[in-house]
Amino acid sequence: MTATAYVHGYDPREADRLHDQAHALAELLHAGTTYASGAHVLEAGCGTGAQTVELARRSPGTWFTSIDRSARSVDAARQRVDAAGLANVAFRQADIMALPFAPQSFDHVFVCFVLEHLPRPADAVAALMQLVRPGGTLTVIEGDHGTACFHPDDPAARAAIACQVALQQRAGGDPFIGRRLHRLLAAAGLHDVRVTPRLVYTDGSRPGFADSFTRRTFTVMIEGVRASAITAGLIDAAAFDAGVRALNRTAEPDGSFCYTFFKATAVMR
Amino acid sequence: MTATAYVHGYDPREADRLHDQAHALAELLHAGTTYASGAHVLEAGCGTGAQTVELARRSPGTWFTSIDRSARSVDAARQRVDAAGLANVAFRQADIMALPFAPQSFDHVFVCFVLEHLPRPADAVAALMQLVRPGGTLTVIEGDHGTACFHPDDPAARAAIACQVALQQRAGGDPFIGRRLHRLLAAAGLHDVRVTPRLVYTDGSRPGFADSFTRRTFTVMIEGVRASAITAGLIDAAAFDAGVRALNRTAEPDGSFCYTFFKATAVMR
Repeated sequence: MTATAYVHGYDPREADRLHDQAHALAELLHAGTTYASGAHVLEAGCGTGAQTVELARRSPGTWFTSIDRSARSVDAARQRVDAAGLANVAFRQADIMALPFAPQSFDHVFVCFVLEHLPRPADAVAALMQLVRPGGTLTVIEGDHGTACFHPDDPAARAAIACQVALQQRAGGDPFIGRRLHRLLAAAGLHDVRVTPRLVYTDGSRPGFADSFTRRTFTVMIEGVRASAITAGLIDAAAFDAGVRALNRTAEPDGSFCYTFFKATAVMR
Repeated sequence: MTATAYVHGYDPREADRLHDQAHALAELLHAGTTYASGAHVLEAGCGTGAQTVELARRSPGTWFTSIDRSARSVDAARQRVDAAGLANVAFRQADIMALPFAPQSFDHVFVCFVLEHLPRPADAVAALMQLVRPGGTLTVIEGDHGTACFHPDDPAARAAIACQVALQQRAGGDPFIGRRLHRLLAAAGLHDVRVTPRLVYTDGSRPGFADSFTRRTFTVMIEGVRASAITAGLIDAAAFDAGVRALNRTAEPDGSFCYTFFKATAVMR
């Protein structure tokens, strides 16, 4: 994973977005994920702790080890977990491809919004599998930008999304990884691979959710690549800004917005 | 609605598809739809009765009146309902834009895969609303071809889907109507409009469902426009067939397929 300006979690506004997202989406994404009391769980790629807080709160008797390769993100995550009054998380700076843990150190591994950024996600899955005891589980949550669909539809909005897609692909990531999570985990030799899509849908009947998800999560994420996209020559400022306006337009009372996250669970032999 | 070769339900193979679809998707689409004993419900646009059987079975004490503008479809629907041993459905040939019923004749109206074919769906909603008593409900289920997403992704598959989209649009329909159902019903003056997306997802963990939905429902529907698309000059035979193969490819054990239906319910003032 190459550090680029757009990678999630480094920019303060981006960090806010992830916090909003974790709050608005927590139930949707984390439903079904609780770990046994006393279990040891590795959260690989915790970023600024948006999901860490949810994990630790939902499984208060579980011991979490949350790692990220960015020391700054680890610091932010630690502060967030402390502020939430949670004492069941240990943090460590480490790269997901060179983790400082013995084989089978953990009962379970949890990965969220990480594989989409990696040039070789299958290698990361293989590395993480080494750390899980037989019978333990791997849980992976990723997005898929191909699932974004909205009313009013607008070519300008699609062009702005395409910038995020292109930049993520240039950095070696896969913005469409969600739909291939099943294959990725099954091909790695994991068992009982189950993928449940988690569809976010907003319309005028829930203006607060349209605001928190469509405007302050999805559109802010797209806005986050503005400078990179313009610098890379993918789009000009006026076209990009029109795209952002078109995306925000879909959060008006007569608009709608859909996006699907994919959550996979699998068992180590 | 103009009769065209591709419109759902006229071709025997298409009728089979709708029957398979009704079976595989029945729980997904109909969950939440049961009517009170003694209630009178209009099913507007019953086609060959794929949904009629589900409706009548799930609400055995309810009286259904199912109409379609095609006498052939009505006959097929009647036979299907008779074969299912259901006695709570009356059929009638009628056009949705000129229905032979007095105002407020029904407690509820149900419409499935119909508005997507109409040049003026808002007019149809307005006409149907006249038939519902105050406090009654309108339920609408429609697809949205923009939600189709699959692995492996393939431009040939997208080209074949684009043929169905173009033909439906040329006939005055809207293959992307799902995402705007909320707006359509709210703008008509209906109350408490609630839309719940119903996402169909198939992957290698459920090969039977991948076969029944991806191959025998979605891909067969796309195949149904082959002759029309070639005749219209939208695509050549080889390209279309490659698209169909690419769609069927996504039902292999390492593939996946997503499609979202939208179900709306609303209340008459």
